[in-house]
Amino acid sequence: MHDLTDEIAEIVIASGARAGLAHVFNVGSTGAVGAIEFEPGLQQDLPAMLDKLFPPSRDYGHEQAWHDGNGHSHLQATMLGPALTVPIKDAKLVFGAWQRVFHLECDIKPRRRTIAITIMGES
Amino acid sequence: MHDLTDEIAEIVIASGARAGLAHVFNVGSTGAVGAIEFEPGLQQDLPAMLDKLFPPSRDYGHEQAWHDGNGHSHLQATMLGPALTVPIKDAKLVFGAWQRVFHLECDIKPRRRTIAITIMGES
Amino acid sequence: MHDLTDEIAEIVIASGARAGLAHVFNVGSTGAVGAIEFEPGLQQDLPAMLDKLFPPSRDYGHEQAWHDGNGHSHLQATMLGPALTVPIKDAKLVFGAWQRVFHLECDIKPRRRTIAITIMGES
Repeated sequence: MHDLTDEIAEIVIASGARAGLAHVFNVGSTGAVGAIEFEPGLQQDLPAMLDKLFPPSRDYGHEQAWHDGNGHSHLQATMLGPALTVPIKDAKLVFGAWQRVFHLECDIKPRRRTIAITIMGES
Repeated sequence: MHDLTDEIAEIVIASGARAGLAHVFNVGSTGAVGAIEFEPGLQQDLPAMLDKLFPPSRDYGHEQAWHDGNGHSHLQATMLGPALTVPIKDAKLVFGAWQRVFHLECDIKPRRRTIAITIMGES
Repeated sequence: MHDLTDEIAEIVIASGARAGLAHVFNVGSTGAVGAIEFEPGLQQDLPAMLDKLFPPSRDYGHEQAWHDGNGHSHLQATMLGPALTVPIKDAKLVFGAWQRVFHLECDIKPRRRTIAITIMGES
């Protein structure tokens, strides 16, 4: 689980947009992005609860077709979703004091991911 | 749980946009926005099911760090997500007959929240 | 469950946008859109897991008010969400090799749905 907030804030500044939207998108089927208070407790709780609700199992249809052991990873990533859009005001992300953008890889092995950032707005 | 639809529709009209997108964003880590048929039954069912899937508990890592009793609130809000984008056509939100924008505060105490509305489009 | 990706890609090309965002929105309260590896296993797993987490039941408040048997459908659709935004680069959707846009109708009977596609960007 990674905190993407500082990198996105830099891209917003570089874009010159003072008002608008920043769209964050995970390229790939087993990764997700979202918003969270990024602290060690929740970094442990979120994947743990996802594994409780969508547990690793050999019984998924995905597993019976592909035998790659990551059916639950796909389901977790689809439920969280690959995209988050955050407002921009005064060239800054509009966030609460502790609110941050996270990336979570749900796959069972490490993956190298591309995150696409799109800024729409006016300078 | 609050219905934000009428206020957003007024902001769309005031913006002058006839086609485009309306982005709705909850500022803060334990609130969420989404779409629902906003009727009393579901207003009771949605928080009840969230409490069943992410139950209040002292066992969360978040709780062990912060002792504020709202670990489940953070997880529920992250799963629902803080943002919703709705299309605009003819200066109106493109919704089904019963589809509405809701705000749900998942925290264990009342919170005063800022909702950021961003309109992108053409007049 | 339907794969909307090819139709959206055609709309992106017809729009003339080479960079920007494609927003996909399900009009109606019991349908959802999202991203998934669209293969037969997961097409079976996702609705099955949604029915496990939000099971059909006569006990929902929605059911007691409306007696239409689809309280779980509303909750499933709200959790998945009605909207997905995908980046556009070089007039193409920015997706992973297997990543696709799906529509899932969660209602207990077939529904005819309108999907609103909005393209924002520059040519």
